Amino acid sequence: MPNCDCESESTTPFLDSVALPEDLRRLPIESLPAVATEARAELVRLGAASGGHFAGSLGACELTIALHWVYETPSDRVVWDVGHQAYVHKMLTGRRRELERIKRADGPSGFLRRAESVYDVFGAGHAGTSVSAAVGVAQAIRARGGDDRVVAVLGDGAATAGMSFEALNHAGELGVDVGVVLNDNGMSIAPSVGGLSRTGRWRDYLESLGATFVGCVDGHDFDELAPALLRLRESAGLAVLHVRTRKGAGYGPAESDPYGWHATRPFDVASGLPHSSAPTARSWTSAFSDALIRLAEQDERVVAITAAMPDGTGLDRFAERFPGRTFDVGIAEQHAVTFAAGLAAEGLRPVCAIYSTFLQRGFDQIVHDVAMQNLPVTFALDRAGLVGGDGPTHHGLLDLSYLRIIPGLAVAAPRDEKELFDLLRLAVESGQPFALRYPRGALAGELPAEGAAGFAEAQVLRDGSSVTLLAIGKTVATALEVADRLAERGVSAGVVDARFIKPLDTVLIAREAKRTGCLVTLEDHTRCGGFGGAVLEQMAGQLPRIEICCIGVGDSFVPHGDVADQWRAEGMDASSVTEQVEQLLGKKRAEVAA
Amino acid sequence: MPNCDCESESTTPFLDSVALPEDLRRLPIESLPAVATEARAELVRLGAASGGHFAGSLGACELTIALHWVYETPSDRVVWDVGHQAYVHKMLTGRRRELERIKRADGPSGFLRRAESVYDVFGAGHAGTSVSAAVGVAQAIRARGGDDRVVAVLGDGAATAGMSFEALNHAGELGVDVGVVLNDNGMSIAPSVGGLSRTGRWRDYLESLGATFVGCVDGHDFDELAPALLRLRESAGLAVLHVRTRKGAGYGPAESDPYGWHATRPFDVASGLPHSSAPTARSWTSAFSDALIRLAEQDERVVAITAAMPDGTGLDRFAERFPGRTFDVGIAEQHAVTFAAGLAAEGLRPVCAIYSTFLQRGFDQIVHDVAMQNLPVTFALDRAGLVGGDGPTHHGLLDLSYLRIIPGLAVAAPRDEKELFDLLRLAVESGQPFALRYPRGALAGELPAEGAAGFAEAQVLRDGSSVTLLAIGKTVATALEVADRLAERGVSAGVVDARFIKPLDTVLIAREAKRTGCLVTLEDHTRCGGFGGAVLEQMAGQLPRIEICCIGVGDSFVPHGDVADQWRAEGMDASSVTEQVEQLLGKKRAEVAA
Repeated sequence: MPNCDCESESTTPFLDSVALPEDLRRLPIESLPAVATEARAELVRLGAASGGHFAGSLGACELTIALHWVYETPSDRVVWDVGHQAYVHKMLTGRRRELERIKRADGPSGFLRRAESVYDVFGAGHAGTSVSAAVGVAQAIRARGGDDRVVAVLGDGAATAGMSFEALNHAGELGVDVGVVLNDNGMSIAPSVGGLSRTGRWRDYLESLGATFVGCVDGHDFDELAPALLRLRESAGLAVLHVRTRKGAGYGPAESDPYGWHATRPFDVASGLPHSSAPTARSWTSAFSDALIRLAEQDERVVAITAAMPDGTGLDRFAERFPGRTFDVGIAEQHAVTFAAGLAAEGLRPVCAIYSTFLQRGFDQIVHDVAMQNLPVTFALDRAGLVGGDGPTHHGLLDLSYLRIIPGLAVAAPRDEKELFDLLRLAVESGQPFALRYPRGALAGELPAEGAAGFAEAQVLRDGSSVTLLAIGKTVATALEVADRLAERGVSAGVVDARFIKPLDTVLIAREAKRTGCLVTLEDHTRCGGFGGAVLEQMAGQLPRIEICCIGVGDSFVPHGDVADQWRAEGMDASSVTEQVEQLLGKKRAEVAA
Repeated sequence: MPNCDCESESTTPFLDSVALPEDLRRLPIESLPAVATEARAELVRLGAASGGHFAGSLGACELTIALHWVYETPSDRVVWDVGHQAYVHKMLTGRRRELERIKRADGPSGFLRRAESVYDVFGAGHAGTSVSAAVGVAQAIRARGGDDRVVAVLGDGAATAGMSFEALNHAGELGVDVGVVLNDNGMSIAPSVGGLSRTGRWRDYLESLGATFVGCVDGHDFDELAPALLRLRESAGLAVLHVRTRKGAGYGPAESDPYGWHATRPFDVASGLPHSSAPTARSWTSAFSDALIRLAEQDERVVAITAAMPDGTGLDRFAERFPGRTFDVGIAEQHAVTFAAGLAAEGLRPVCAIYSTFLQRGFDQIVHDVAMQNLPVTFALDRAGLVGGDGPTHHGLLDLSYLRIIPGLAVAAPRDEKELFDLLRLAVESGQPFALRYPRGALAGELPAEGAAGFAEAQVLRDGSSVTLLAIGKTVATALEVADRLAERGVSAGVVDARFIKPLDTVLIAREAKRTGCLVTLEDHTRCGGFGGAVLEQMAGQLPRIEICCIGVGDSFVPHGDVADQWRAEGMDASSVTEQVEQLLGKKRAEVAA
C-alpha cells in the first residue's frame, strides 16, 4: 500500500496517493490494477451522483493509467480526442475533487481544455482532432530539437472522421515521431460503423498509410499494455498501438449496454436504475423524431442520415421503423452532406440530422454540393443555440450566420412542436435546400397563434403599438413573456415569429417596423451576422426611420454551465430583455423629444 | 473509318463521328486509340488557343473514352471529381465546339455542372466529392430497384481528402454497388503527398475499407482498360479499379513537366512556349509569397502550410527557401487547420495558406481547434472575392461572413502590397488567431495614404464631407476612383480603408458616420453577413441618424466569366458605385427636405 496521509477509512488508498501523474509513476506496475479498481469505483460513484459521460472513461480506465505511467506527462504530451473518455485522465491530473461538479459552471469541462490543465495538451470536444494536433505538436518539438514524446489517443469511432485519415496519411509521410493509441471499443457513441470497422483490418489500413503497427493488446491488462506503450514510446515515425477495450468495462450495467450508458442521469449503483423515475419532459429531439417518422410514412422519398449520432438526433427510432431508409455514415459530416446530395440528385428527399455544431464540418459541402446544385436536402440541426453543460465546443451558436450566407438555402426555426412538424414538412416538400434548427432540451408548450403561415412567411403572434419583438425559434416563447411583462407596465409590444431567417419576410417586417418604429430582434445565437444582422441588412434602406436593437449571444465563447444561467448572463432571459426594451423605448422618446 | 458527314479534309474523322457517347459505343475497340489520338490533338489545339486546365485531361484521355465506351452513359452514371480532368468528357458529350469558349461567360464551365449536361451527373470543383456523391446516387438507384450502374472517378490527389476516405469507408459497409476508378497519376496539382502515396499500398488501403480490388491497369492501354472496366461494371458492392496514368500524357512538354502544365496560358504547339512573352503583372500571390519569405527570414517561428496547392498559394517559392518549414498536407484542409493549431500550441507561428473557397472545408477546425483555444495561427486566404473564369465553385465570396462570426479571430484585408506585408506581419506578431484575405489576379499599385495604421485600426485615405466610402481590400482602389468621379460632379466623398472587418474600428467609423451622415460600404464579397453587415451591426444603435448603403455581391451563385464583367453585373465597378452613391445622396436630400 502506498504512502498516504488519509485516515484508515479511505476506500481508495491507492488513488488517494496519486495527486499527479508523477505519483503514479512512483508506483510499481503491480499496484496499477488497484489504482484502476479504485478509479473505476470513483467514476461509478461520481456518475451515480451527478450523471455524465462515463461509459467511455470506464473502458479507457487502465489505458489512461498506463499512459500516465509510461509517458512522462506533462513534458511528454498525451493528446486526447473528444474528452468523453478522459474523466480518469482528469482524476489523475489534479482534478479528482472537481469531478463532482463536472460540466457545472463551477466545475471542470466535460471535455479537454488547455486553460484547465497543463495536462490537457490540446482542447477537444469534436471527434477526430487528436492525431492532427499531435502531429503538429510533435513537429514543433522536433523543430526545436526537443525530445519530449507525443502520443494521440484515437477512438475507433473517431477514426471514421476524415480528418483522422488526413492526419495519419500526412504523418505517414512527414516522418515525425508520433505515437497513436487506437482505442478500439467497437463504438463511437453508438456501435462503430464503416467498412474498416467491419473488416477489422486496422493493420493493413495503418500500414498502407505509412504507420508502423506496434501491436494489438488487451486494454484492460497492464501486463500487456505497459510494455506495448513502452514500445510505442520508443518507436520512430508514425507508430500505432491497437488497444482493445470494452466501453463501460467494470460496471455491469454499463458493460452490458454501453450504448445506453454512453451518458447517464444520476443512478443507483447497485441496480443501475436512474434515481428519478419521473418521466423527463418531451424534448425537441423526440418531437423531430416523431415528425420525421410521420413524414416518412406519407412520403416514401424521405430518407434519414446521421453522422454516428442515431440516439442524440432521435434517428434511432426512425431506424427501427425504417431500417432501409436510415444511414449512419460514421463521424463523417463531410460525406454525410455530399452523400445526401447524391441521394437527392436521384429524386430522394434526404433529411440530414446533424447537431448544429457538428454540421460546421460539412459547411463546404452544403455550399458546393447541395446549394450550388439546388438539391432538395433538408438539414435538421439539433442542439442549436446555447446547450448548457457541454459548453463552448457544443453550443450551436453560429448556424444562422454560416447558413444564411449560402445562396438558395432556406433557413428556418420552429417555435414549438407543431411548427417543427409544419416546417419539416415544408422543407421536405419544398424541393430545395433547407435547414431547420431547434434547441437542446424540453419543448415549450404549443404557443398561441391564429392561422398558419407558409414558406418564407413570418407570423404575427401578438399585435402591439410601441415596439415589435421579432423572435425566431426558442426565443419566441421569451418574446411572448416579455410582451406580457411590458403589458403589465403599460407598454404595448407586438410579437412576430419570423420563422424564416432566409428568405426573410421583409414585407411583414417592414410593415411592423413602419407601424411601431421600433424593432427588437431576439435570437438564441451569436449576435454576429445572425438573425439580427439579417434584419438589419434587409431594413438598411429604411433604417433612418426606425430604432432597432439586436439581442442575442455576445461575441465570445460561452463557458459550460446551466442553460438558464447562460441565458441570463447573455441578457436573453425575459427579465433582461424587458429591461433592454424599456431602455430602447426611453431612448426613442428622448430622441423624439429632442 | 467511321461514317462521317464531314469533308475529307478533317484531321479528326473518328472524333467527328462521336456526337454523343452512344456513337462511341458503336465503334469497335480497335478504333478507340484513333479517337484518343484525335481527342488529344484537339485538346492540345484548344489549350494552345485559349489556355486552361489540360494536363489532367491529357492523362485521362483513354480512361474517359473507355468509360463512355463501357458504361451506358447517361443511364449509367459516371461521377467525375473536380473537373480538371473532364475536358475529354465534355468533348464526347456534345460540348466539343463549346470547349473553345471554356470558362468564358458564353462557354462551358471549367468544371462539372449538372445544369450544363445530363452527362454531368454531379457538379464538382472542389476535390474529393465524387465517391460520396456516387454512393448516394447508387443507393437511390438501388432504393427504386433500378439497375443502372454507377462509377466514380477519384484522382490519387483527391483520395488524400478526408471525405474520400469517409465515403469509401461508408460504401465498404453499405453494400451498394458502386465502382470507383482510382486515377493514379501521382499528382494532385503538385506531386501527390501522404503516406499512402509513398507506400503505394492502395490495395491494402482499399480492402481494409471493405472494397473489392478489381486490379491495376495501364490507363493508356485500351486492351487493359476496357476489360477491367467491364469487370468493374459487373462487380457487386464497393469495387475499385486502380488505373495508372501519366498527367500530360501524349504531349511532350506537358508530359515532361505535368506540374507546370496543370494549367496553361495559350501556347505554341510545336515548342510548348507561351504565345506571349510579356511578363504577367505582379500578382497578389507573388506579393504574399515574398512577404512571407521576408517575415520568415526575420522570425524563425514562422512556418507555412499548404493543402496541395504550393504553386497556387505562392508557397512553392517559400518551400525552396525554407524546405524544412513548409508542409504540404495534401487536399486535407481539415487536418491543415488542426495541424497548424498543434504547431501553434507549441510556440510556432504557422501561416496556413488556403484559397478562400477551400478553407470552407476547415471551418469547424478554425472555430474549435484554433479560435476557441486562442492559438496564433494565421490564415492567408488567396482567391478571395470574385475569381472570374473558375466560377461559382471557386469564388471566395463567403469568407468575411463565415470568419467574422468566430469569437477571437481577427479578420483583415489589404488594399495593396505594402498593406499585405504590414497586415501579415501584424497577424504573425499578434499572437492570436488571424485571417487575411486577398484576391486573385494583379495587384493594384500602391495606394496613397498618410502614416500607418495598427491592429484593428481603419485608415482615412481621403477626407470628404457628403459621404464616406467605407472600403476593404480590393474595393479600396474602387472607392478612390469613385471619390474622384464624385469630385468631378462636385460631391465631396471621403474614403476609409477599414483594413479590419474584425475587430472593426467602430470609433473611426462612428466618427465618419456622424460627420457625413452617410456611409457606403464596398466589399468584393456577398452582401449577406459580410463587411456591410458588420458595419450595420456595429452602427445599429446610431442608425436613426445616418443613411447607409451596402454594396457587394448579390445573394446568388455568380457564373463563370470575366472578372470585370462580374464586377459590373454586381454593380461593384466604379461607374455603378458612383451612380448608387448619387442615388443615396439624392434620397437623403429628399428626406431632409421632407
